[in-house]
Amino acid sequence: MGLIVQKYGGTSVATPERIKHVARRVVNTKVAGNDVVVVVSAPGDTTDHLIELAKQVNERPPAREMDMLLATGEQISIALLAMAIHAIGHSAISLTGAQVRILTDGVHTKARILEVDRERIHRELARGNIVIVAGFQGVTPDNEITTLGRGGSDVTAVALASALDAQACEIYTDVEGVYTADPRIVPEAKKLDFVSFDEILEMASSGAVVLQTRAAEYAKQYNVPLHIRSTFSEAEGTRIGEVTAMEKVRVVTAVAHDRNVAKITITDVPDVPGIAHRLFSAIAAKHINVDMIVQSASREGVTDISFTVAATDGEAAAEVAQEVAREIGASGVMWEGGVAKISIVGAGMVTNPGVAAKMFGALAQEGINIQLISTSEIKVSCIIDEKDVERAVRAVHRAFNLDQIDRV
Amino acid sequence: MGLIVQKYGGTSVATPERIKHVARRVVNTKVAGNDVVVVVSAPGDTTDHLIELAKQVNERPPAREMDMLLATGEQISIALLAMAIHAIGHSAISLTGAQVRILTDGVHTKARILEVDRERIHRELARGNIVIVAGFQGVTPDNEITTLGRGGSDVTAVALASALDAQACEIYTDVEGVYTADPRIVPEAKKLDFVSFDEILEMASSGAVVLQTRAAEYAKQYNVPLHIRSTFSEAEGTRIGEVTAMEKVRVVTAVAHDRNVAKITITDVPDVPGIAHRLFSAIAAKHINVDMIVQSASREGVTDISFTVAATDGEAAAEVAQEVAREIGASGVMWEGGVAKISIVGAGMVTNPGVAAKMFGALAQEGINIQLISTSEIKVSCIIDEKDVERAVRAVHRAFNLDQIDRV
Repeated sequence: MGLIVQKYGGTSVATPERIKHVARRVVNTKVAGNDVVVVVSAPGDTTDHLIELAKQVNERPPAREMDMLLATGEQISIALLAMAIHAIGHSAISLTGAQVRILTDGVHTKARILEVDRERIHRELARGNIVIVAGFQGVTPDNEITTLGRGGSDVTAVALASALDAQACEIYTDVEGVYTADPRIVPEAKKLDFVSFDEILEMASSGAVVLQTRAAEYAKQYNVPLHIRSTFSEAEGTRIGEVTAMEKVRVVTAVAHDRNVAKITITDVPDVPGIAHRLFSAIAAKHINVDMIVQSASREGVTDISFTVAATDGEAAAEVAQEVAREIGASGVMWEGGVAKISIVGAGMVTNPGVAAKMFGALAQEGINIQLISTSEIKVSCIIDEKDVERAVRAVHRAFNLDQIDRV
Repeated sequence: MGLIVQKYGGTSVATPERIKHVARRVVNTKVAGNDVVVVVSAPGDTTDHLIELAKQVNERPPAREMDMLLATGEQISIALLAMAIHAIGHSAISLTGAQVRILTDGVHTKARILEVDRERIHRELARGNIVIVAGFQGVTPDNEITTLGRGGSDVTAVALASALDAQACEIYTDVEGVYTADPRIVPEAKKLDFVSFDEILEMASSGAVVLQTRAAEYAKQYNVPLHIRSTFSEAEGTRIGEVTAMEKVRVVTAVAHDRNVAKITITDVPDVPGIAHRLFSAIAAKHINVDMIVQSASREGVTDISFTVAATDGEAAAEVAQEVAREIGASGVMWEGGVAKISIVGAGMVTNPGVAAKMFGALAQEGINIQLISTSEIKVSCIIDEKDVERAVRAVHRAFNLDQIDRV
């Protein structure tokens, strides 16, 4: 008996049959005695279809109008899910981000949530309604429609769970939980019963698509325990929460990979203070997230700076880099697609020497060249050729015996 | 130099190519020195597609959720049109009904506009923006999304033109204007240069689809001159306004027909005062518009009452009629689809005797049986078998020599 937030992704509401299936799951949770707030994404490939339409009328559609367009996808889902719940005799009401008043800043297509108004949701729950909220969207204090960027519906769910002090935040997806690697690449990959906030955060930023980075950040920041489950099975899924000391024994938890990577290198950068600040401030001003940053050792007063961004931001980031390179007198900018990132993640890594070396060894044995390396306390990431990524994931998964991981 | 409201229907924005075409027309009007407010419908068959989706999850979807769903169609159009205008170097901003604050009552799927807030539109025009407003939708004072029913985008355009005191309200469609009859049925039908408010109102309610009844009502009520034009040609179209004495010479202006008709008859109704009030109040309470009402002469203290409604409202109206029939002790209710309405409309009809008789004669000569007759000052309507409708339209068009009508 409590308040449960459930989030269903696009594949879960891709067809009328699936929407009816989700309606039944939601109603089961309600009938068990809970208040239920449901967050849904746009159905199936609706968002891709809308983006395609936009490109046909404008190669570079203005971000504000893009948000106006894309917000319709989730609005379709919430209306259909509310109808499907009514069809099985329960009361539900759909609410857009604007109706809930999920207040965001005004950075269109990548807005950040400032505040969630609880009043309307509480009112509808008090009336006995199941409340269906459009994911991925918000509204500025000026009533402008915004969207939250990739994985925005997960962010909506976590923000609502936090604001409403929910007992659980369940993220329903088309896989059964978090795995030691992508099971489509590594058939012997195992499902994890528990993953820490830090681990899921590193995995999310390393391309494990089960949860998006920003949602993992929010969940950690507001300490919202998550439960990743499959829409299509009753399996227990993966729980995500604060790690306890005992659980830190796992050195390497999973291998993640990400094909959505562009690498940009500025060559012969004068090795004087303030250069990196100038470059990355200029990139941040365009609201582009930088992932890895590597600066090579200085030789003859110059150095190379490489960084990676999402492939979709590659062109814009390279343009900024070009400008800055000219200003600071660097010799040039190289922009490369066709690269990928492979990462190992594990909360126990920090206390275990030799973990990174073992990963590099596994890649070397497969003859895979490493272009960039970056490490954190619980992660080692390497940029490699995109064509090598599947072999690399399998080799590293094998090297750490992840198919024999203890289920915690 | 002034403010022009333009409304583009669904076929005008059905494809990216057409949206770009509309963008150029809109920009031409702006470049000529006008402020431009554009109202658009949902693209092509989007609304039908959404209704189909709704039926798949719920045979009788709740009206509130239907509005939530259908409002997305126009939101897609406004975003795409704004993008297309940006692509050719002009600034435009799209606004939903909620953003403009087109305030309506709370009768979902058939809401009526209470008030239009001018503030946001004036602010955007002052910034030099072309303002693109979603047709067909509004918002209640409680922020609930509503839709205005069939032809709602026309209503939006007229309401905006009135609120903004526009110099012109141009309704763009896929035909070149108002004709003496449907040119698909009567190839020799002629385009009319001018039609009076009263005439267009009667024509609209008689099934001439170029403008919907409620929009014609609003236009007449608020004296908003309209200009019906084709999106796909530069032809002058048809102007609609207050008729002058001189123009009243046209006895019969056009023949209209409507296949979207259901006829309901209550038999053996006790002939006592208050019965009609009871019946039609009950139907009005369900927000069903009644078109024709015919009560036959009383015989032996009982009478028959027949009325027509839109075919889509037939079932619901028949249900209400059943209840009322039981209460008042009538003998039964007959509900017939498969009927159609044919009407002649003309502002000069009132002063010309024998017009109705001429119409009945034309139908009789074709062997077409008349089931119901209803007349107004400027209209004669007959309910006939739906299978006879095309022959009937051609016969009546010929009888009144409408292919030789003077172009006013």
